[in-house]
Amino acid sequence: MNTLLSDTLGFVAWREAQQAAVEHALSGWVPLDAPAGLGEAMRYAVLDGGKRLRPLLVLATSAAVNGAPGAAMRAACAVELIHAYSLVHDDMPCMDNDVLRRGKPTVHVKFGEAQALLAGDALQALAFELLVPGDGSLEADMSVALCRLLALSAGAAGMAGGQAVDLASVGVALDQAALEAMHRQKTGALLQASVMMGAATGQTSEATRAQLARYGASLGLAFQVVDDILDVTADSATLGKTAGKDAACDKPTFVSLMGLDQAQAYADRVLDQAHEALRHSDLTHTDTLHALADWVGRRAH
Amino acid sequence: MNTLLSDTLGFVAWREAQQAAVEHALSGWVPLDAPAGLGEAMRYAVLDGGKRLRPLLVLATSAAVNGAPGAAMRAACAVELIHAYSLVHDDMPCMDNDVLRRGKPTVHVKFGEAQALLAGDALQALAFELLVPGDGSLEADMSVALCRLLALSAGAAGMAGGQAVDLASVGVALDQAALEAMHRQKTGALLQASVMMGAATGQTSEATRAQLARYGASLGLAFQVVDDILDVTADSATLGKTAGKDAACDKPTFVSLMGLDQAQAYADRVLDQAHEALRHSDLTHTDTLHALADWVGRRAH
Repeated sequence: MNTLLSDTLGFVAWREAQQAAVEHALSGWVPLDAPAGLGEAMRYAVLDGGKRLRPLLVLATSAAVNGAPGAAMRAACAVELIHAYSLVHDDMPCMDNDVLRRGKPTVHVKFGEAQALLAGDALQALAFELLVPGDGSLEADMSVALCRLLALSAGAAGMAGGQAVDLASVGVALDQAALEAMHRQKTGALLQASVMMGAATGQTSEATRAQLARYGASLGLAFQVVDDILDVTADSATLGKTAGKDAACDKPTFVSLMGLDQAQAYADRVLDQAHEALRHSDLTHTDTLHALADWVGRRAH
Repeated sequence: MNTLLSDTLGFVAWREAQQAAVEHALSGWVPLDAPAGLGEAMRYAVLDGGKRLRPLLVLATSAAVNGAPGAAMRAACAVELIHAYSLVHDDMPCMDNDVLRRGKPTVHVKFGEAQALLAGDALQALAFELLVPGDGSLEADMSVALCRLLALSAGAAGMAGGQAVDLASVGVALDQAALEAMHRQKTGALLQASVMMGAATGQTSEATRAQLARYGASLGLAFQVVDDILDVTADSATLGKTAGKDAACDKPTFVSLMGLDQAQAYADRVLDQAHEALRHSDLTHTDTLHALADWVGRRAH
């Protein structure tokens, strides 16, 4: 067996074990007993779906900095709850009006719009609740650092702000800089925060945190370029969501801006920067972080 | 001047000064520069409106326990941001479909549904951001305690859960216990959390925290009974929102359950319990908390 194949198998085993652990933790934390169907809608939105890229970034970074595993799992689930709530709200009729997500009817299709709105709201609150356990299992300083990273990446300066720009961009010819700025907020902020929250569960030098921030930013940008590529090359069944949606909505994408081949080359170039950032850090166990960057890129091939 | 009148004037002066201080702090914290109109929608939702009851409860409780003023103002604004976001989402067409709030068009009427959804989401994130300032101005233990109180009161076990029950209760004959359970979550949890967050900015005995929790719960219940009374006795101009809405929607209320006179007597009785809880605490400076309970009751007379 050559080294590449062995590494890949090691990564796949790690990834599947972590995905199962995240699923288990989320299932314990997203309430069964929330009243009047709210718990069902929350669990439907969160469980049994998605690649869990953000939790994997948290967990891999935490492992690379020798972070506290309990804190890492809470942070991993908190980020995923923010991501899940954003999908629920994003799919609603007043936003993207999507009926399919992860191969299943979207939350508002299944539970109604009002319940979808409330489930998203409650998932955001739950994300922060996970970071302040109240049982002494997380050091207060670490809780505060994690809450701050999450709040900044989710709010007006991050994801919500990016979505507002996205809304305003339909039918508008954005140049590459404007498109990247929008995605840096809309999807990049939470992906980068996943890396930085992983880092916050352990001790790191300021220089390494800066390289991890570069890694997270590059990975976040590459993720979006690949997403745009998949929107035109994959079908809905493979994506688990409606394909060709961006073009149909006249939304600017990296593919509409630079064409398919150039977009592919650009994704590879940006991922190289992610790998390079890791090599410039003083971390020694970065295999999984490298593999995660490769994994993001591989979706497009 | 008799004592009662002098006390009332003292309270009015305190209240107006604190309302102005909260307005000033919120104006500094709710971003001007959020992209693509998001900041305008957030500011419209939060500034220049409302009685600021929740912030006043935080500030008065903090003063009663000799709490840290900087922490109290952050907590006061955080609670108000959660309240403001809940109103924005609650007014949306898929929820209560209200067009008037605080005498102005609701956020979705003025900015569109998608922007209202995002503004609410971003306000919730901002609420938590305020509690983890990152500049060392708040002790980490206090930040964590405040975040936990806020997350629990806003989420599925609190406000969002209560709203889900409320949605499911249209046209349903709730008895008094079920109606109170619903309101304990929907509006009571955040009002009680306001009191407990104020307490968390200082040092209190466990016994006093228990009495403050009773005070907050009673005040929260009284607030809702009074709200139901006003829904039938006041006009839209006075309320600043659509009057007679609950009856029109066939929602169960304390007035529909017990009649107007009995509801009034019940509000008074519950407020007596709030006053009593304060008298049973070991706090010495509770005048303002008593006055706030009176103020909640006075709206109904």
